[in-house]
Amino acid sequence: MTQNIYDNDEFFAGYSRLGRSVAGLDGAAEWPSLRAMLPPLRGARIVDLGCGFGWFCRWAREQGAAAVRGIDVSEKMLARARAETADPAITYERADLETLDLPERAFDLVYSSLTFHYLENLERLLGQVHRAAAPGGRLVCSVEHPVYTAPTRPGWITDADGRKHWPVNCYQLEGARTTDWLAPGVVKHHRTMTTHLNLLIELGFALRRIEEWGPTAEQIAAQPNLAEERERPMFLLIAADRA
Amino acid sequence: MTQNIYDNDEFFAGYSRLGRSVAGLDGAAEWPSLRAMLPPLRGARIVDLGCGFGWFCRWAREQGAAAVRGIDVSEKMLARARAETADPAITYERADLETLDLPERAFDLVYSSLTFHYLENLERLLGQVHRAAAPGGRLVCSVEHPVYTAPTRPGWITDADGRKHWPVNCYQLEGARTTDWLAPGVVKHHRTMTTHLNLLIELGFALRRIEEWGPTAEQIAAQPNLAEERERPMFLLIAADRA
Repeated sequence: MTQNIYDNDEFFAGYSRLGRSVAGLDGAAEWPSLRAMLPPLRGARIVDLGCGFGWFCRWAREQGAAAVRGIDVSEKMLARARAETADPAITYERADLETLDLPERAFDLVYSSLTFHYLENLERLLGQVHRAAAPGGRLVCSVEHPVYTAPTRPGWITDADGRKHWPVNCYQLEGARTTDWLAPGVVKHHRTMTTHLNLLIELGFALRRIEEWGPTAEQIAAQPNLAEERERPMFLLIAADRA
Repeated sequence: MTQNIYDNDEFFAGYSRLGRSVAGLDGAAEWPSLRAMLPPLRGARIVDLGCGFGWFCRWAREQGAAAVRGIDVSEKMLARARAETADPAITYERADLETLDLPERAFDLVYSSLTFHYLENLERLLGQVHRAAAPGGRLVCSVEHPVYTAPTRPGWITDADGRKHWPVNCYQLEGARTTDWLAPGVVKHHRTMTTHLNLLIELGFALRRIEEWGPTAEQIAAQPNLAEERERPMFLLIAADRA
């Protein structure tokens, strides 16, 4: 089973204070890029893998989605999602994405935001995603970028001229990386760009768009601390269609 | 016009001593990965963009290619290519890839090894490549990986524990990077992974396989200095088909 760090009290308290937890989708700097990859949502059947507080589920219904199924491993997150949702077309379900079985050809959109890097066995889940996507259906997902997840000891370094660098090592060594982020001992899984993209191609997805999120000038003006994200790619966003 | 650094005497002398210049395709560590991306070559019409000494052109003919056209901007490289080739089905031509026009639907394979990062305007050339590929034809190319080309001052750093890191900065800032490699003032152009892949998708290519070359255990055993290439992705290899 994937580490369920979101049900750790310290992690959950820290996560609940992040901009994306307080302000929802608009609190996530990469959301405009991810949103631009979505298909038309009117009438769409959607599953959100790692739905968290349910922000995307509720937004998708506002855009006219027919039905949205949110899945997450965290009881704490689902409890808040349920408390903030009053819409019978949105259902929440607790499940471990490592062992999840999805119905066949059931969804026009499979959405997943910053979840896949927690999984040990992404290959199995992507197989389920392909099976669950209707013909012509789309996967839109974000993960922490491989350049961001690779380092065994992540952290900015600043050179003599004050220029920030992101030191990459162990890029080719896929597997678990343990960091102290919001709580000690958070386990994420590093995979190369190659692995993400070839898994999708081999399953029969057609890649439609790849983004390596970086902040816009407007975002940096509003939030100067985002400037460092021009130095490295932080998030990888992928849109792929089932043939 | 692209900087024609290969006709610089100092650069050419240095380049001529590299393993890949002395031993040909087998002297390039990424060659086995690139070769695995090729379509069947028997009877194929091929163009090699940045053909250099013509190693690939001659090898492709040995595999049964019908005709191979090698294009390069360097007079010095083409002179050696011509001197080492006695095969009327291989033709060499000097041209600037920034302004090259290719015939329509004329090639089953467009091949390019470590050339595209010298181009200022890759978009134009890839448009020509798409136009020149026969329906079902394939592009197989390698470029220096965006993680490798990004840094404004590239160079390994070693931490207190002796671990090597590759410091990435300015990843999101595309454009020229000037380094001293074999000769001073070599200009290469940094583009993100996003840019490479989305250019191809938008032109109508279907991405078939992406590789971020890293050395195998056997390669490291034979050439221990390759071990550092496990720390960072050095080359990006792409196979894409014209629909």
